[in-house]
Amino acid sequence: MRVEVLCTGDELLTGLTPDTNGQYFAERLLESLGIRLARITTVGDEVEDIESALRELSARADAVLVSGGLGPTADDRTAEAAARAQGVALVEDGRALEHIRRRFAERGVAFTPNNARQALVPQGAEAIINPVGTAPMLVQRLGRCTLFYLPGVPSELRHLVERQVLPRLRELAAGEGKRTFRALGVLKTVGLPESHLDALVAPVVVRHPKVEFGFRTHAPENHLKLLAEGEAEHVAIEALEAAAADCREVLRRWLFAEDEDTLPGVLAEALRARGQTVAVAESITGGLVCQLLTEPAGATAYFKGGVVAYHDILKRRWAHVSKEALSTGGAVSAEVARQMARGIREELSATYGLSLTGFAGPDGGTEADPVGTVYLALAFEGGEEHERSLFRGSRERVRQFAAHTALDILRRRVLGGG
Amino acid sequence: MRVEVLCTGDELLTGLTPDTNGQYFAERLLESLGIRLARITTVGDEVEDIESALRELSARADAVLVSGGLGPTADDRTAEAAARAQGVALVEDGRALEHIRRRFAERGVAFTPNNARQALVPQGAEAIINPVGTAPMLVQRLGRCTLFYLPGVPSELRHLVERQVLPRLRELAAGEGKRTFRALGVLKTVGLPESHLDALVAPVVVRHPKVEFGFRTHAPENHLKLLAEGEAEHVAIEALEAAAADCREVLRRWLFAEDEDTLPGVLAEALRARGQTVAVAESITGGLVCQLLTEPAGATAYFKGGVVAYHDILKRRWAHVSKEALSTGGAVSAEVARQMARGIREELSATYGLSLTGFAGPDGGTEADPVGTVYLALAFEGGEEHERSLFRGSRERVRQFAAHTALDILRRRVLGGG
Repeated sequence: MRVEVLCTGDELLTGLTPDTNGQYFAERLLESLGIRLARITTVGDEVEDIESALRELSARADAVLVSGGLGPTADDRTAEAAARAQGVALVEDGRALEHIRRRFAERGVAFTPNNARQALVPQGAEAIINPVGTAPMLVQRLGRCTLFYLPGVPSELRHLVERQVLPRLRELAAGEGKRTFRALGVLKTVGLPESHLDALVAPVVVRHPKVEFGFRTHAPENHLKLLAEGEAEHVAIEALEAAAADCREVLRRWLFAEDEDTLPGVLAEALRARGQTVAVAESITGGLVCQLLTEPAGATAYFKGGVVAYHDILKRRWAHVSKEALSTGGAVSAEVARQMARGIREELSATYGLSLTGFAGPDGGTEADPVGTVYLALAFEGGEEHERSLFRGSRERVRQFAAHTALDILRRRVLGGG
Repeated sequence: MRVEVLCTGDELLTGLTPDTNGQYFAERLLESLGIRLARITTVGDEVEDIESALRELSARADAVLVSGGLGPTADDRTAEAAARAQGVALVEDGRALEHIRRRFAERGVAFTPNNARQALVPQGAEAIINPVGTAPMLVQRLGRCTLFYLPGVPSELRHLVERQVLPRLRELAAGEGKRTFRALGVLKTVGLPESHLDALVAPVVVRHPKVEFGFRTHAPENHLKLLAEGEAEHVAIEALEAAAADCREVLRRWLFAEDEDTLPGVLAEALRARGQTVAVAESITGGLVCQLLTEPAGATAYFKGGVVAYHDILKRRWAHVSKEALSTGGAVSAEVARQMARGIREELSATYGLSLTGFAGPDGGTEADPVGTVYLALAFEGGEEHERSLFRGSRERVRQFAAHTALDILRRRVLGGG
């Protein structure tokens, strides 16, 4: 079954709005029905452009999903384009009009004539009431093609896709016989530039020609997405598992989580399982390390607390850093980071004390320690480790990389120290 | 001049990767040349699909920008499709091959025969060396249409767009005479749901038919983008200014910044201008408020420091909350928030003390204060204010909304208090 997508809206052609609907259609069709989209077309608000696109797409596809242009304003011309493509008139749908009037009344908003435009549908098309908005969804047949028209507002579109479009497409596909099954996996790495990830995985890609590899950067993390397809579910899953196993082998050092898991989530689970706790003294990251550590629900169990010790006096008061260390090496130094880690661990009686100090920029830094320099330290029972890193890029980027590196140091220590 | 875009890649039709290249083309053409894209088409990796799309697009457009499919692997078929669409052979480009060999040598990576594929170009097409990658950019004429083929890797594509494609398009457009000028503005609001923003702005939209209004959610902020066009630059700017002035009028209460400005940036500037400082005691937000406040460069000037007082003992030790307040109302109460704000202000000798305590969920909460309840307090010379908010949604959403609300309370106080 050939399915195409038509996204409409001037804002998509000017870059004012990213097209999230196209990607959503693609993901859901694949996940839910094993259908791979044949093409996505994006046009503006001009009725002629929409009409010609509808003619083209319906001539070659079995089903077309259309988003946008069903609103009440003058530049919402999709229903009109649909009528023109079929050579029929627009007619008022009584039920749709009634639904719109009721929604306005419920909200105490005055109903104006332009709102009635949303009840106009191409003659012969089916209007499906939209329980989360005013514009109805439309279903139209053009030749052998079925067209589904959806409002462009993502929340409304998604509601209607899940409850109306996917079940109807499933029925259409059933009539076509054979379907494709797919399995999807995500491997998440940190500390590995995208180009290195790509190069490391390249030999694995060659060995698994039936698996599709996608790279996605969520700086400072890099994710590898694997998509396997097969004529039966177990075939797809086995292909995915084989490729994932090979990837784990080459990515081991940098791989911290898979699928829905996150770095803070993995860390939270590891700490909880061991009954351990962490306390934080951070400067350069300004609260980001604490924020990441408290992302998982139930963080109270393993997070003791933290200080954002931006000024020297607080490094001394809260993290017991000595006056000597601050005056000798300055606030950005290995010794201060180590004292901060030890001091906050002691102050809060935690299993681990984690600390960061550095220059986030854009100003500051020294010749020996330029902007982007970060000293990280981790104190624990009977020992400590520390490292110096240099991150390039904007202030925001330096802070993000520093915080994630700190979490990864803690993760390796907790997991390694089993 | 009619310009269309063709994005290629199976990963775009399976939802594995969002299409950022299409939006980038759209934005840059508009910003840099005042050209509005006519259509974006997305197809997969099949050579037949790419070829037929190239034929269609080149038949109706003056210029086509193509992204993706120039890599070294077997599923990179764009150059082949380009040759087929023109009915010519692929030939090896000596300079391109030399460039690829040199890049491999510089990196000490072995050059394998499949890498030579990237030097194959359709006969008669121009190959432009890619200084930041291996695949050259290709320029081809098909009838009256000029096609630009770019590697899909965003960093390479952007480099080539800025340095090669935009200047060449500008030349092509100059031959066509008349151009359109545009002016773009962004109004940023917080504390206003998108549907309310939409409703508030609706009457303004009607008054400015020549301005395009786009809504973009960066939860918890909602941004309104305005795009005005005109046959001269001053016409576009005047239309934008008139619409922006009307929008400011209706959005005044929620508008915190415009264009490149951010909530932390506006706040930083206001505090610095007044020589004022802030100290934070946060619990529910786990460090996020401190992190936001330290986003701007030079935060040392106005940010005194903060504590992430997750446990009662730290609320007492660092923010001087009384035992009675904690035992009477519990840690999530107006009284504890007020004492935290006063305590941290005093502890750090700051102009303002800002505090938050609440239930982020998903577990916890009480009948009176369910999950999503947040108490916020702000202490200042001779007074204080506090409020209770209830945010719906995920733990992450509650924390984000709570932190931004705290910053907005501080912003209003700083700006209001001159």
